[in-house]
Amino acid sequence: MDNSLYIGVDLGGTNIKAGAVSDTGRIIHEIETATEADQGPPHVLDRIAGAVRDLSASIPGDAEIGGVGIGIPGQIDVKHGLCHFAPNMKGWDELSVTPALEEKLGCPVILDNDANVAALGEYAYGAGQGSLHMLMVTLGTGVGGGLVLDGRIFRGVRDLAGEFGHMSVDYNGFVCSCGRKGCIEEYASIRGIVRMVREKLDAGAESSLRSVEKLTPREIYHDAVNGDALAIEAFERAGDYLGIAIADVANLLNIERVVVGGGVANAGDFILNAARKRVAQDALPVAAKSVEIVRAELGNSAGLVGAAYLARTAAS
Amino acid sequence: MDNSLYIGVDLGGTNIKAGAVSDTGRIIHEIETATEADQGPPHVLDRIAGAVRDLSASIPGDAEIGGVGIGIPGQIDVKHGLCHFAPNMKGWDELSVTPALEEKLGCPVILDNDANVAALGEYAYGAGQGSLHMLMVTLGTGVGGGLVLDGRIFRGVRDLAGEFGHMSVDYNGFVCSCGRKGCIEEYASIRGIVRMVREKLDAGAESSLRSVEKLTPREIYHDAVNGDALAIEAFERAGDYLGIAIADVANLLNIERVVVGGGVANAGDFILNAARKRVAQDALPVAAKSVEIVRAELGNSAGLVGAAYLARTAAS
Repeated sequence: MDNSLYIGVDLGGTNIKAGAVSDTGRIIHEIETATEADQGPPHVLDRIAGAVRDLSASIPGDAEIGGVGIGIPGQIDVKHGLCHFAPNMKGWDELSVTPALEEKLGCPVILDNDANVAALGEYAYGAGQGSLHMLMVTLGTGVGGGLVLDGRIFRGVRDLAGEFGHMSVDYNGFVCSCGRKGCIEEYASIRGIVRMVREKLDAGAESSLRSVEKLTPREIYHDAVNGDALAIEAFERAGDYLGIAIADVANLLNIERVVVGGGVANAGDFILNAARKRVAQDALPVAAKSVEIVRAELGNSAGLVGAAYLARTAAS
Repeated sequence: MDNSLYIGVDLGGTNIKAGAVSDTGRIIHEIETATEADQGPPHVLDRIAGAVRDLSASIPGDAEIGGVGIGIPGQIDVKHGLCHFAPNMKGWDELSVTPALEEKLGCPVILDNDANVAALGEYAYGAGQGSLHMLMVTLGTGVGGGLVLDGRIFRGVRDLAGEFGHMSVDYNGFVCSCGRKGCIEEYASIRGIVRMVREKLDAGAESSLRSVEKLTPREIYHDAVNGDALAIEAFERAGDYLGIAIADVANLLNIERVVVGGGVANAGDFILNAARKRVAQDALPVAAKSVEIVRAELGNSAGLVGAAYLARTAAS
């Protein structure tokens, strides 16, 4: 058993979260600080290094830091520790991250995409535990994905794998921000769900949502719980579409578990039951029986503990 | 280097093909014999064992047989050497195969699904060579699939992975034999292509195919080569749908190569160019750039050499 602590960093456009994580996934100590992304990459790298040093200083004296894992909201070259592209952080295109941080910190550093480390976190310590092959789906502003196959992040040939949100469920459907038609992101994200509700309201549907000023998943969920038919339908339709895409993955990969997280997943069974029903109906019988669809367990900590787990497993 | 020969067996409902295969994928000697599936499993197992023994007897005296790999048209439990279900072979449901054959032959035997071993054959010795992650798609009566990830068949949790043919490209589309709507099998198989042509003919389209008695991919290809617009359109539409499903896989898995085989693939670039165009348009930029779509190279031998390669790599 490895008693070292590993530090996970969840780098966001707004905040840096960092935590020292035990081998059982317990966050021993955690800090959060502003990213200050507008001040450019060297500054952000200094802030990450500072957060890691502060954490190191705060943990019990006999514990050693084995390494640092960082989840980044962008497209990463894992092997070279390079950020190809990070839409929310200025100056991070084609930025070499790992060498500079390793020099600052004097310990191994590994980067990966934020959706990948969140999937790994749920796999190692959350709702994915005990599964062999797992897909994590994050329903939020967009729809993110991360694949853990045989216990490791599956990255594909250029570290882009896991883009579940851009699987198409309707080749004639809505145009996605990626340019493709019918991506599941257009149906199961906040944007997709709010659009469905708005369309129905515009078409004259009766609903308690009519009196809501700004439609959000939280408002829609509130009204769904209170029995509003339109609110319920919006989640069920999103779940049904989600199930179509999950059935594709189940048939292609015969995965064992799908872990659904993100803000929209708080609508829980309204969405998940519809997805389960669709998968039971659409996937091949063995594929449908093999796969469980469950809610994520780690919330916002998934990325942090997953990044620490990535560093831990990279070291062994 | 391993100088042993490994025997690959391609078990079909009609014929058994078996070959002794070198480590470079060369078929040293090959035999084909009737399956006689109607006479039941023990008889077929005897015939497989007989074919293997005949092969062993025919190869040069100093070569040893390291093991036997068998591709079976059904659903296989690879670990236990069990056939769960084989639609074209009576009595093969839940049939234990490996122990009986190993006793008969005195060497290791490994089974897998026929689409999986064909994918592995193309990966090791055909159009998949040099790729890290590869999907094989077989366009025939149905649409088959096999995934090779990190150089190994990816089987999923219950050995069902690779069912590319049952990814849906249109949730409101044609009902597939599996019960699902819009499976790519309904668009890119012989059945799908012939149906497209027939529908257009019924709707009054002008075409040289109107004079053809029995529509087959061969006839349609013949007329496509001669410039018949409907024949060309049929393949291009099939390829376009194929591209939608490949774009899904490219986004999810960031694979490096898609190898397209089967009878319909003889229509070559009519289909493949349409698929390539759709993938370039639909997949995320990096995913689209990562993936090459190429024709299979091994034809009917893919399964045989793939089964031998499976036995070879299982032994090492």
